[in-house]
Amino acid sequence: MPMYVVGHKIPDSDSICGAIALAYLKNQIDEPAIAARLGELSPETAFILERFGFEAPELKLSYAGEDVYIVDHSELTQAPDDIAEATIVGIVDHHKLGDLTTSTPLECWIRPVGCSNTVIKMMYDFFGVAIPKDIAGIMLCAILSDTVIFKSPTCTTADIRCVEDLAEIAGIEDVQALGMEMFNVKSAVAGTPARDLVMRDFKDFNMNGNLVGIGQLEVVDLAVFDEIKAELEADIAALKEEGERHSVMLLLTDIMKEGSELLVVSDDITIIERAYSIETENGRVWLEGVLSRKKQVVPPLQDSFI
Amino acid sequence: MPMYVVGHKIPDSDSICGAIALAYLKNQIDEPAIAARLGELSPETAFILERFGFEAPELKLSYAGEDVYIVDHSELTQAPDDIAEATIVGIVDHHKLGDLTTSTPLECWIRPVGCSNTVIKMMYDFFGVAIPKDIAGIMLCAILSDTVIFKSPTCTTADIRCVEDLAEIAGIEDVQALGMEMFNVKSAVAGTPARDLVMRDFKDFNMNGNLVGIGQLEVVDLAVFDEIKAELEADIAALKEEGERHSVMLLLTDIMKEGSELLVVSDDITIIERAYSIETENGRVWLEGVLSRKKQVVPPLQDSFI
Repeated sequence: MPMYVVGHKIPDSDSICGAIALAYLKNQIDEPAIAARLGELSPETAFILERFGFEAPELKLSYAGEDVYIVDHSELTQAPDDIAEATIVGIVDHHKLGDLTTSTPLECWIRPVGCSNTVIKMMYDFFGVAIPKDIAGIMLCAILSDTVIFKSPTCTTADIRCVEDLAEIAGIEDVQALGMEMFNVKSAVAGTPARDLVMRDFKDFNMNGNLVGIGQLEVVDLAVFDEIKAELEADIAALKEEGERHSVMLLLTDIMKEGSELLVVSDDITIIERAYSIETENGRVWLEGVLSRKKQVVPPLQDSFI
Repeated sequence: MPMYVVGHKIPDSDSICGAIALAYLKNQIDEPAIAARLGELSPETAFILERFGFEAPELKLSYAGEDVYIVDHSELTQAPDDIAEATIVGIVDHHKLGDLTTSTPLECWIRPVGCSNTVIKMMYDFFGVAIPKDIAGIMLCAILSDTVIFKSPTCTTADIRCVEDLAEIAGIEDVQALGMEMFNVKSAVAGTPARDLVMRDFKDFNMNGNLVGIGQLEVVDLAVFDEIKAELEADIAALKEEGERHSVMLLLTDIMKEGSELLVVSDDITIIERAYSIETENGRVWLEGVLSRKKQVVPPLQDSFI
């Protein structure tokens, strides 16, 4: 019975490219594996897959009775709904340790680096498996995405070295140019419904018993939001009520100016303000230098909820 | 500020030797580290440390405000009491994924192998650090202990290969003989109070909200328990009440006959019996072929509690 390799809900490029890359590696070492996904592709991920000639992995929401290798998270809220009825055989990740547990021994490749695909590259090296040219391409793009072309504070020397190796394998000469092309695709928001934008890269977290949803939109120029900001605010307020969440936050990240405008609705805004030592004005605040949800937004908030 | 490297409560040889071996490795890669322990040494561990010329790691129970690298578990019940006030920077383990969580990214080296020291050997290889002769010796002994000299179903080819490598580094020609010498030390129970024996290798587990304590004594001949079995049974019954546990189990493992006598007291014995498809008689039952708490005892029980 092959295992399924699957990333998190509302998959980003790291989850999708990571599932493809890890499933290939597993098949090479005689552990049959199928890449899967828990949701629709973002425009960025669709661009990456098309660029390197891949189909989207199988859309599969239920995993009861299956062996599952989890990519890019270790959180119950981000995992398949019936993960408790599956056997988790492994986790590859680069986030904080979440609340997934298992009843049998497993393998965890978790490292404090910028992207799961950097960890998967380490796995290829460990098992001595050569990375095909096209898989090197999607892995490289996932790392450029997660590290905001090396600008994010989550980016480590391991990520940069990994991209150098992968660029050589994939025959990509101008990594920066590819990254900018990708972020230009990501920045196209015109004509997209507010809800689709809010949910494009949205994660729920369990913060000391409170459900907190945090979305992030990374663009090359924040001006693209000028005409739709009020719509986005109305939508996160609606989303908070629908999901019985304590708070919903949306980070509008300008990767050129290297900061984020935070939009927030909350049952208790003081918890949010305390977390970042800020004052919001009508649920908005500019966070200078904040690019990373994982490293700069989630940990202080987690601590503020205790 | 150096990190502390520490195994689980009631430390076994894997926890103690692993803390020493991992702290040495971390210091070699310019990450200052101090090995520590959460309890007294077992006679087996004392034998190993003396054999290779090591002092016991520092006894340290409180870790608030410290950076901590966790060895050989990922369970809250087995971690330092104030682990929530510490920063977990990493976990090296070979068990099921437990309920420890973190608020920041970390590294997890978890593999489904027989011993944490096998994983630590992989870490030495990854970082390209040479293993000193004496550290190779204690790592090898920890693997022989956890795999019951390769007899346990938890033993993998990775563990065996690792012992081969370490034996060469440590200059140990007869690995089997060293293992038997170690298990003979472990088998000496005469004159030891029942409580000390029950607690010698004892772990608490959270089984769907129920606290279950499971001890294990591995000996070369079960006859050493003939005269004290009733005392052991009285003691696990007392331990159950003192700790408000749902169940306490004690495995008396005969490594030559390759099986375990299970002694059990429980609020609901049918959960235990269902887990292993057995019938107990006066709280006793022989489990043929059962050597591993981790692989053969905990997972079916975890499932039986759901």
